[in-house]
Amino acid sequence: MEDKYGNVISSLAEANDKKIVMLVLDGLGDCDNNGKGTALQIASTPNMDKLAQKSALGLVHPVSPGITPGSGPGHLGLFGYDPVIYQIGRGVLSALGIGFPLEKGNVAARMNFCTLDEQGRVTDRRAGRISTDRNRELMEKIRENVQTDEAEVVFETVAEHRGLMVLKGDDLDDRVGDTDPQETGKKPLDPARPPFDSGRTARIVKELSDRFREVLKDEPEANMLIIRGIAQLPDWPSFHERYRLHATAIAGYPMYRGIARLLGMDIWSEALDPEAILGDTIKAMEEYDFIFSHFKDTDKTGEDGNIERKAEAIEKMDAALPLLLEGEPDVLIITGDHATPAPLKSHSWHPVPILLKAPYTRGPYQENFDEIAATRGELGFFRSREIMPLAMAHAGKLKKFGA
Amino acid sequence: MEDKYGNVISSLAEANDKKIVMLVLDGLGDCDNNGKGTALQIASTPNMDKLAQKSALGLVHPVSPGITPGSGPGHLGLFGYDPVIYQIGRGVLSALGIGFPLEKGNVAARMNFCTLDEQGRVTDRRAGRISTDRNRELMEKIRENVQTDEAEVVFETVAEHRGLMVLKGDDLDDRVGDTDPQETGKKPLDPARPPFDSGRTARIVKELSDRFREVLKDEPEANMLIIRGIAQLPDWPSFHERYRLHATAIAGYPMYRGIARLLGMDIWSEALDPEAILGDTIKAMEEYDFIFSHFKDTDKTGEDGNIERKAEAIEKMDAALPLLLEGEPDVLIITGDHATPAPLKSHSWHPVPILLKAPYTRGPYQENFDEIAATRGELGFFRSREIMPLAMAHAGKLKKFGA
Repeated sequence: MEDKYGNVISSLAEANDKKIVMLVLDGLGDCDNNGKGTALQIASTPNMDKLAQKSALGLVHPVSPGITPGSGPGHLGLFGYDPVIYQIGRGVLSALGIGFPLEKGNVAARMNFCTLDEQGRVTDRRAGRISTDRNRELMEKIRENVQTDEAEVVFETVAEHRGLMVLKGDDLDDRVGDTDPQETGKKPLDPARPPFDSGRTARIVKELSDRFREVLKDEPEANMLIIRGIAQLPDWPSFHERYRLHATAIAGYPMYRGIARLLGMDIWSEALDPEAILGDTIKAMEEYDFIFSHFKDTDKTGEDGNIERKAEAIEKMDAALPLLLEGEPDVLIITGDHATPAPLKSHSWHPVPILLKAPYTRGPYQENFDEIAATRGELGFFRSREIMPLAMAHAGKLKKFGA
Repeated sequence: MEDKYGNVISSLAEANDKKIVMLVLDGLGDCDNNGKGTALQIASTPNMDKLAQKSALGLVHPVSPGITPGSGPGHLGLFGYDPVIYQIGRGVLSALGIGFPLEKGNVAARMNFCTLDEQGRVTDRRAGRISTDRNRELMEKIRENVQTDEAEVVFETVAEHRGLMVLKGDDLDDRVGDTDPQETGKKPLDPARPPFDSGRTARIVKELSDRFREVLKDEPEANMLIIRGIAQLPDWPSFHERYRLHATAIAGYPMYRGIARLLGMDIWSEALDPEAILGDTIKAMEEYDFIFSHFKDTDKTGEDGNIERKAEAIEKMDAALPLLLEGEPDVLIITGDHATPAPLKSHSWHPVPILLKAPYTRGPYQENFDEIAATRGELGFFRSREIMPLAMAHAGKLKKFGA
C-alpha cells in the first residue's frame, strides 16, 4: 500500500542541529476510574503542569477512534509510520520482544510446544504450560537434531511453552501457513497447503515441522511444536531515511528496543527508572538529534488494574522531569503509545494526551496536563502518526511543501 | 477502491452478548436559527441532558467537512462504511425508497415520463408533472407492451412523472448511459453509446428504450420515458460480516429499511413515533445485539423550514427516552445521519452532534446535549464512519490490533 503521506514528509525532511526528545509513558492514556478521573488527573504532577502552562496540548489516536493498538502499532504511530500501512507480523514482534537481532530478509515464527494424541491430534496447545527450564531442555534437543540445507535455522526459548524460530538465508518469504490449528482435536496443519503451496519457505517449514514430530516423539508431555504468525522482517524506509534524524532509543524492555532497531535507530541504554531514563536522555542529546525515551511502569500498573500505582509511576516520572528540562531539548514530546486504563487491565482505544513543548506554540495554554485539559488544548484531536511532522516542524526540520 | 480501514475493523470484530443501540434522529444537526441557536439548543431535553452528564459527546462529519450527504451516504457513514468508497447508485436508492425488494445482481434505474416534439427532442423532462394516477395508467401500458427475452423487466410507479425500472437476470451490469439528456431541446441519448457500447445490459436498455417510444407515441403529454442513474445492487460486505453483529432495523420509511436490508440487517418494525420506536427497540434487544432505530420527524420538519416543529420533534423523542433507558443497552448512540437546518430547508454539511453512553468514558462531561456542549466533549470532531468502531470497542467487541 502506497504511503503517500509518509512520502511527502520524507521529501520535506532536512537535518539541522535541533534536538527532539520523545518521552513515551507506555499506556499513559486512561478512562475514568470509578469517578476519580484518569491516572493523570489523580497523579500530582507539578512539573508537567508547569510545562502545560507554556506547551501545546492535545489528544492522539494511535490508529483511529475505537481501535486498540498493540505495542507495535502504538509505537509505529508515534514514529510516524501509519500502523495500517506498516503492519509488523506476530513472529517478528515475538523476536523483537526477546531482543533477537533480526536482519532484513529473516523470517520469524512463534512456536508452541504442544501435546498430540496417538492419532496425531492436538490435545493441549500449550503442552500443560511446561516450565521455561523444561522448554530450554527440549529446545536444545530440537537445536541439535533439526536443521535443513535450505536455510540457517535458529530456535529460541521464549517462556513456558512458547518459543521462536528464525530462518536466515536468501530468497525466503513469509507465504507460509500456520501449523497451529488453533483448537484441540485437530491435527497440525500443513504449512504448504493452498494458497501457500507454491512457496519455497513453506516447503522448508514443512520439512522442519516433520522433523519436530520425529525428534519429540518420545516426549509424552510436549511431543510436537506448532508454529504461527510467520513473518518476514519488513523492508521499510528507516527513521533516518524518513526524517534525516540520527535517532537513539532508551528503553528497558526488549520489545521497544526491537521496534526502534527495526527502524534503524541506535540503542543508547536499557534504563528503566525515571531518573536513569532522563539522565541518559540528556547524555544522548550530545550525540543524537532524536531521542526516544521509553518508560514502562505506567503500562504495567495499568495492566495490573492498579490505578494508585499507575498514578505513582506518573508522579515518579514527573519528579525526575527537571533533570531533562535542564538539558533544554528544542522540542519535547510527552505522550503514550496507547491507553492502558486500570478498569480494563489492558490496552484500550482511548485517545492519549500529548504535551508538546516547542518554540512556536500558541495556546490556549492550560493549568495542568491531563486528558480534560488536553481536550481544550491547541492541538485538538489528531493521529499519533502526525506527531513526528509536528515535532519536525517546530524543530525547523521540515521544508515548505510546494512553492 | 480497497477499504483497508474497513478490513482492519472486520479482522478485529468478535461477538459477545453486549447490546448496542444506535438511535438516529434524521437530520438532527443544525446551524443557528436567526440567533435562537440550533434545534437541540432550542428544544427542552431534560433526559438527553441528564445522559450528557455521564456520556461522551462529540461532533461527526458524515463524509468530510463541507460535504452534504444524501440519506444513503449519511447512513452508510453511521454504519461504518466509508461513503466515498461505498457509493450507492441513484437507481438503487430509488428502489430502496419505495421498498422494492432488490436482489444482488439486479439493475435499477430511475425513469421520468417526458414530452418529445415531432423531431424527437425533449420539450419537458417531467411531462408536465403528470399525476401519480396518470403515471399508473401509463406504466400499466408499458408493463403490458414492453418486455425482452434477455432479462426480466419490472416497471414501478414512484410518484408524479417518476418511475423505477428493474432488470433481473444473469450477467447484468451497470455500464449503461443515461438516456435522459438533462436538458430540453435535445433528443434522448443512446444508452449504448461509447464508452457504454460494449455492455450487454446497455443493448438491452436500448431495445427497451426504443419500445417506450413506440408504445407511448400516441400519448401526447407523456410520449417517452427517459432513464438515468442506472445502478446495480452492490455486493458489499454485510454488516454481520464486518462486525459479527446480529442487527435489526426499526424504521418507518422504506428508504431506511432499504439501506438496512442492503447491508443484510433484519427489519424489526416500521414504527414511526418515539414511543413505538423505543418500545420496539427494547423488544428487539432480546433477540439482536445491534438495533438501528430511525426517527424521521427531525428531518421532515427541518426540510419544511420549521425550527419550532423540529425542536418539538426532538422534545417528543426526549420525553420517550426513559422507555429505552430502562432497557439498559450496554452502548447507546444518539446522533443523526446529517444536518437538516431549517434556514436551509434541506440537508447540509454541518457536523452532527453525537452522544455516546458507554461503560468506559472519561469526560469532560457536559451539562446538556447540543452542538455547543458537543464541541467541548471528550470525542472531539471525527468521521461518522468511526462511530461503529468506537461503539464496538466500548462493547468489548473489538480485539487488539497487532501485538
